[in-house]
Amino acid sequence: MLSFDEYKALIEDNLLSFLPDTGVYAEVLKESMGYSLSIGGKRIRPVLLLASCDLAGGDVKKALPYACAVEFIHTYSLIHDDLPAMDDDDMRRGKPSNHKVYGEAMAILAGDGLLNSAAELIAKQALSLEGDADALYAHSKAAHEILSKAGASGMIAGQTADVISEKSSDVSEDLISFIELHKTSDLIAAPTRAGLMLANAADDMIEAFTTYALDIGVGFQILDDILDIEGDEKLLGKTLGKDSEQGKCNYASVHGLEKAKEDLHKLTVEAKESISKYDSEGFFTALASQLESRKM
Amino acid sequence: MLSFDEYKALIEDNLLSFLPDTGVYAEVLKESMGYSLSIGGKRIRPVLLLASCDLAGGDVKKALPYACAVEFIHTYSLIHDDLPAMDDDDMRRGKPSNHKVYGEAMAILAGDGLLNSAAELIAKQALSLEGDADALYAHSKAAHEILSKAGASGMIAGQTADVISEKSSDVSEDLISFIELHKTSDLIAAPTRAGLMLANAADDMIEAFTTYALDIGVGFQILDDILDIEGDEKLLGKTLGKDSEQGKCNYASVHGLEKAKEDLHKLTVEAKESISKYDSEGFFTALASQLESRKM
Repeated sequence: MLSFDEYKALIEDNLLSFLPDTGVYAEVLKESMGYSLSIGGKRIRPVLLLASCDLAGGDVKKALPYACAVEFIHTYSLIHDDLPAMDDDDMRRGKPSNHKVYGEAMAILAGDGLLNSAAELIAKQALSLEGDADALYAHSKAAHEILSKAGASGMIAGQTADVISEKSSDVSEDLISFIELHKTSDLIAAPTRAGLMLANAADDMIEAFTTYALDIGVGFQILDDILDIEGDEKLLGKTLGKDSEQGKCNYASVHGLEKAKEDLHKLTVEAKESISKYDSEGFFTALASQLESRKM
Repeated sequence: MLSFDEYKALIEDNLLSFLPDTGVYAEVLKESMGYSLSIGGKRIRPVLLLASCDLAGGDVKKALPYACAVEFIHTYSLIHDDLPAMDDDDMRRGKPSNHKVYGEAMAILAGDGLLNSAAELIAKQALSLEGDADALYAHSKAAHEILSKAGASGMIAGQTADVISEKSSDVSEDLISFIELHKTSDLIAAPTRAGLMLANAADDMIEAFTTYALDIGVGFQILDDILDIEGDEKLLGKTLGKDSEQGKCNYASVHGLEKAKEDLHKLTVEAKESISKYDSEGFFTALASQLESRKM
């Protein structure tokens, strides 16, 4: 296996090359998509796909387009999230958000373009697999995994519940759990599972890594909530979750800081235990620890 | 083969059933997607998919989810197109547009949800094809066809060029052709071709129907432009193209009404000729004529 930074470099070196050619009259669309893809981020979602595929003996190079597709999806969700009608954020990762640079119309289209490009890039991978029923089926499972977790019963459902919760004075624990599961964890679990599916991993391995991914996904969100409450601005910019608004109802504000930290630790321990028998090189164990200790 | 209205009924009877379950905290997302899917439309794109698949001896029932996915894509593009930052349309098909009913944030999410649901619905169809390399490959070709024509080198590129052209005083003929090809024709050609691909039609048949679909696609847009210029409000609501704004630079305003009508007729004749040897029941020939004579 490679290191986190080596997987990340693979992704960043190839991310833009997987964008479709928009043609001479729509070059600004490609530029706008490329802008948001290029302004950084941890790339943890695509790294999870490459690393899980690698661990299970799959072909990292063949997994790369799927990993980049996941980053396309994550990036489109940030662009649309930042729009004035949504969170109305002028800045993203220390740079002007997409609509501040390209205008709202283009930001809507860039988001649409990235989501569609993700689905298109995934679909394209099957075209070189004619006659290979096993590879086509592994591809199909991975494709469905990513697209279903990203969709209206996954990430977009979480986003919807989040929009609703912001308008509500009565936010239940169940609603917060729903948001944390779908808005963040779904798109952590999907690439982890898809990488294993591409490598034809056994079901029990996929199940173990599903527990791992959901645990670190919810953990991320709780950590983000803790940092929100602590108002630790310096660390705030370094977290993975999408919300950094002060004063929002979240896990830490509902359950209290102490319980939130306790739960984050429990989730991290459970995540590591769930995959210990597979994690021969310690990649996933180290990643969970780094996330808990804010070293990511 | 069935009649146009029978294919249309099949689509409308099943369209909503293919939406993912959004869960109890995001029900408004499903409601919002369902609202825009239910307010009508000719359904010509999904009908073309079913009819072309049927003509080539494919299984209409198995093609139905792909057809509905194409309608999801068309519908999401209308929702985002109507947003204040885009065309700012309060009405769509005689009903309040999505954001007038559900608000802008939800309209953005409903559009995202429909696009993702389309890709997810298509991806799901492969999961029942384990071991069948031929069916998996036919599926893969159809999936890529739809998603690539809908995307950043297809429909979204057309949409982008359209946004740019609205801000420009110097709109070239080439730009207008680019917009007409990508904004409308791409999503007419894609379902026509995908239906044939699902039925394993021969390449020369697919090629003939590509000519047909591109011709009627450009024809639609020219007809729409003609009606724009003529200001025939009564007929305007009955056309297929997306733009009905008065005074825009378009094919008819650039080339003149007479040439536009001549070209529409030429395209219709060419469309019919291109597929005459395949169109044993006259379905596609009749459709092209109806579109030209504004009977659709």
